Amino acid sequence: MSKPSPARMIVLFTDFGGGGPYVGQMQAVLAAQAPGAPRIDLLHEAPRFNPRAAAHLLAACLPAFPEDCVLLGVVDPGVGDARRAPIAVQVGGRWCVGPDNGLFEVFAARACAAGERVSCWEITWRPANLSNSFHGRDLFAPVAARLARGEAPPGEPRDWRLPADTDLAEVIFIDHYGNAVTGLRASGLATDAGLQVGDQRLPRARTFSSVAVGQAFCYENANGLLEIAVNQGSAVAQLGLAIGQPVTVC
Amino acid sequence: MSKPSPARMIVLFTDFGGGGPYVGQMQAVLAAQAPGAPRIDLLHEAPRFNPRAAAHLLAACLPAFPEDCVLLGVVDPGVGDARRAPIAVQVGGRWCVGPDNGLFEVFAARACAAGERVSCWEITWRPANLSNSFHGRDLFAPVAARLARGEAPPGEPRDWRLPADTDLAEVIFIDHYGNAVTGLRASGLATDAGLQVGDQRLPRARTFSSVAVGQAFCYENANGLLEIAVNQGSAVAQLGLAIGQPVTVC
Amino acid sequence: MSKPSPARMIVLFTDFGGGGPYVGQMQAVLAAQAPGAPRIDLLHEAPRFNPRAAAHLLAACLPAFPEDCVLLGVVDPGVGDARRAPIAVQVGGRWCVGPDNGLFEVFAARACAAGERVSCWEITWRPANLSNSFHGRDLFAPVAARLARGEAPPGEPRDWRLPADTDLAEVIFIDHYGNAVTGLRASGLATDAGLQVGDQRLPRARTFSSVAVGQAFCYENANGLLEIAVNQGSAVAQLGLAIGQPVTVC
Repeated sequence: MSKPSPARMIVLFTDFGGGGPYVGQMQAVLAAQAPGAPRIDLLHEAPRFNPRAAAHLLAACLPAFPEDCVLLGVVDPGVGDARRAPIAVQVGGRWCVGPDNGLFEVFAARACAAGERVSCWEITWRPANLSNSFHGRDLFAPVAARLARGEAPPGEPRDWRLPADTDLAEVIFIDHYGNAVTGLRASGLATDAGLQVGDQRLPRARTFSSVAVGQAFCYENANGLLEIAVNQGSAVAQLGLAIGQPVTVC
Repeated sequence: MSKPSPARMIVLFTDFGGGGPYVGQMQAVLAAQAPGAPRIDLLHEAPRFNPRAAAHLLAACLPAFPEDCVLLGVVDPGVGDARRAPIAVQVGGRWCVGPDNGLFEVFAARACAAGERVSCWEITWRPANLSNSFHGRDLFAPVAARLARGEAPPGEPRDWRLPADTDLAEVIFIDHYGNAVTGLRASGLATDAGLQVGDQRLPRARTFSSVAVGQAFCYENANGLLEIAVNQGSAVAQLGLAIGQPVTVC
Repeated sequence: MSKPSPARMIVLFTDFGGGGPYVGQMQAVLAAQAPGAPRIDLLHEAPRFNPRAAAHLLAACLPAFPEDCVLLGVVDPGVGDARRAPIAVQVGGRWCVGPDNGLFEVFAARACAAGERVSCWEITWRPANLSNSFHGRDLFAPVAARLARGEAPPGEPRDWRLPADTDLAEVIFIDHYGNAVTGLRASGLATDAGLQVGDQRLPRARTFSSVAVGQAFCYENANGLLEIAVNQGSAVAQLGLAIGQPVTVC
């Protein structure tokens, strides 16, 4: 009898808020059904009701996670409607489990462009008790646990059209410091490219300590995205930014 | 020598706030004293200083957790006073550990009504160092760790009067989206029962996507409670709700 | 072949905010590189950009953690500048890993005064990919994982000047309830010493339930610091406090 391979890491990415009680209910399902799998809370403050912005943020963060991890992603304003099936998407060695609303498309499109194999499964399994509003706990978490244990997704392969690999020239996330992350990858831009937001031009810098305290600037953040920041201050408060705000490269 | 049975899951439910540092100090005690036990943060934003509202929320959430879990519950505005003893309550196969201020009574009363056995122990053990303000860390967490390891509670059985199993016609929790959870169980009401809040009548719907974006409604949430919500909006902001706000079935 | 000793507990203390995504990215590195080590989130709401206040809070909290734990501490407004080296400080059996900006000095000075051995290593190792803004993930977390596995710090011993062991007569932290923690240790003061804040004199009490609901007071908190509180209310809102506010013993 061979030793079972260790369970894969499960990474949680939602707009549930970190305070609870929704994350804990999902975590309990994962702990009970995939006991050996490490569970990492990547983000529970994903842009609310906004799978498009969340998709760009997820695509920037996920490559740093283990190549065989299972991403449980729930930003699902349409939960309970009949239009879209739950899916599990295999991207190279990783799995993404959640709603088919675009949340995984940016990550998958970029991986595909980089030569990784992408395939999509429709999840046809249903739990005995499926609530109308919390598929994260009732449906997606059990499927993620199953994938983390090394089992196949409980469903069928289906076609899945990937969009073109594009950036999003908007503020997609505001962090705890008041930094505003955009959906623009620095790798595709000149190294001295700045950003225009409203009538403000923000010069490019290397990092926070490159500019004076209180100065607004933009820089390539640790996940490869252009981010608007103020050294030891809040860019959001100082510049009046919000998620969805358009930005222009200049 | 028989293999030790795995440690039970410990579920944390407090009004400490998720940001720390109180949760981490409790978690460290649990990790050191019950190393094999999974630890789940169910909620650290329980209604502050309000064991009664918290009790109704806990009663709705706990049945979904494993049948042998240990609930460490601390909503304890009277911490350090001499009036109430710490308790461990056995409800079927689950344990609840915390202050004797009503926090576990709603859960226990419902389990009792459903035929489960409920018994209460007064915790007579005291740690060498007991702070005046943080019994969660100093007293309740070590007891929870002991129960998770399968040991008996360090105390004595005592009488414990259960209240009648009632609902609470109030807002008992406000979540990250601005949804307002009430203490009314949907199972006891007509399936089309709506809610009256102030002079607003909120119609019943199945889930968010059943109504137009921006519309206020009420629905049976994933834990069986009536909840006031706005599709892709904040019910709290739109309707001016707060914890303790009375609601009427209509 | 001897059984490997279990990995040490890793304790996280940052000003990253609990909501993510920075904590999760560090946690994933730790989970991958020190799989057996328990990971405890002590605090992610440390006073922002304020290593001095954070150092006093950390010094009060850390003694309650296991004597062989590894503290991963990141309050690092100067990240990416060239002035200060990353360090690993051994304080008795514990390790502290992070920036050399004073964050570990208060804890180390007190341990040294109590007779524990303190030694400092400069971390000379660098990862293949080091971002300009997130050394917590790229540099400090891998070093913490290594120390948790029982390996030596990847660097060289260096001199490290400890400051005198002093208190900080300021508000250093505001918790979820609106309590204001000061940097004054109760152990060095008379047991009935009160605090003066602006023109308000706050009497000393034993704990919350020692005073009337709504009354402001100060008390020795569970980590040994004088704290300003209101029984079942918010001291910060009631008294208009903020981090950095000076206090006077009276």
